[in-house]
Amino acid sequence: MSIAAPRIILIAPQLGENIGMVARAMLNCGLTDLHLVAPRDGWPSHEAERASSGALEKGVRVSIHNSTEDAIADLHYVLATTARPRDMVKEIYTPEAAIQAIHAKNSVEHNKCGILFGGERAGLDNDNIALCHGIITVPLNPEFTSLNLAQAVLLLSYEWLKIQDSTTAKQFHTGDTDIAPRESITGLVSRLEGELDAHHFFRSEGLRPSVLRNITNLFSRMNITAQEVNTFHGIISALTGKKPPLERKD
Amino acid sequence: MSIAAPRIILIAPQLGENIGMVARAMLNCGLTDLHLVAPRDGWPSHEAERASSGALEKGVRVSIHNSTEDAIADLHYVLATTARPRDMVKEIYTPEAAIQAIHAKNSVEHNKCGILFGGERAGLDNDNIALCHGIITVPLNPEFTSLNLAQAVLLLSYEWLKIQDSTTAKQFHTGDTDIAPRESITGLVSRLEGELDAHHFFRSEGLRPSVLRNITNLFSRMNITAQEVNTFHGIISALTGKKPPLERKD
Repeated sequence: MSIAAPRIILIAPQLGENIGMVARAMLNCGLTDLHLVAPRDGWPSHEAERASSGALEKGVRVSIHNSTEDAIADLHYVLATTARPRDMVKEIYTPEAAIQAIHAKNSVEHNKCGILFGGERAGLDNDNIALCHGIITVPLNPEFTSLNLAQAVLLLSYEWLKIQDSTTAKQFHTGDTDIAPRESITGLVSRLEGELDAHHFFRSEGLRPSVLRNITNLFSRMNITAQEVNTFHGIISALTGKKPPLERKD
Repeated sequence: MSIAAPRIILIAPQLGENIGMVARAMLNCGLTDLHLVAPRDGWPSHEAERASSGALEKGVRVSIHNSTEDAIADLHYVLATTARPRDMVKEIYTPEAAIQAIHAKNSVEHNKCGILFGGERAGLDNDNIALCHGIITVPLNPEFTSLNLAQAVLLLSYEWLKIQDSTTAKQFHTGDTDIAPRESITGLVSRLEGELDAHHFFRSEGLRPSVLRNITNLFSRMNITAQEVNTFHGIISALTGKKPPLERKD
């Protein structure tokens, strides 16, 4: 059973374009439940549809309300995003901690959760904040905290995406080819050594072992593929005018 | 000594407005080094300045280049953002893992790092990707992967913000007041019990302990402040017409 993503609630949003960008950011991260309280320019909005890049057609459902109370009536846990800690007694979360709390409420306690965002100009007023269980504050650069509405929604949606996601943090993508087995690299370095010998590359026999070790090390750590080993053989053949010493299987 | 944030490099960006939004997202997260390769509509851009909400005046420095090679010439480690894993042998990182790698390269190995972003329409081509050490792919909703340029920059900038930030994940903000000491809560519940008794609230003496325990528990877990204890005393006084039994110190 999949876990329901939190509802996004925009209080008195002004520009349709921003609402569209909010929808786009939401669907990017798999959120689909958007509620608007008293959008200034009305609804539906042509600007919102255009700016959503299809998100309003492809998945994000929009509900309109006259009051915040109405928009959150069926929710069990609501957090308010606001940049300034107000003179109000409240739990303050980072976006990551907020989404962890929502995820737990949602998946373990089966609560319906939502996140409140204020309009572009004024943000959320204290009456709206008082309706919420806690506050989310993004720890932005204190010298430049003016965060666009859709960007704020994106950051919370992205934390939701991350908590749901199981992508390997770092993976090596080899496409149609494979990493070369060790013997191919050994064969390549050995052929290179022979050609370098023939071309008087090693000026001092004393230094040969360490120079050769450096070359071996470079080829060892470059994660070279079978195809790229072939490319290197081709380069050596081109530069020396000689075919590879042995027919290669790959 | 502070750790230099990664350079953001936009390859052939189209709309000045998007460049401005990129600058705004960067400065929100403390990044200031923006390089543009062949911006379609030229530079400087009035649209960019307007959309940056002051970020281009207040901190983000912009450099213009004719080629990607030029824009990354002095960097030691460069990652490319792209939604599609190409048929190219490459390390693929999530945004978080990419920023961890950059942070390590930057702080431990003293390397200068950068992140490449393609233009709005086509993204990065394979020639640009080939110049990079690895790829960053945001694990977006597979049914809706169209991420706006400024949003993509924001997500990477935000991960940088997070790795630098030491904000407590969850903190209780009490403003000008303080959490009530235990004795205030005990006093409040005790007064409430007395008034409930006088008003025949406890219909069964057998249930009294558990009802009282529930009330005590509610007041215990609500993180009530000294001021709010006073407010509750005021509520009881108003409803009963009686002053609190003892003068309170707070």
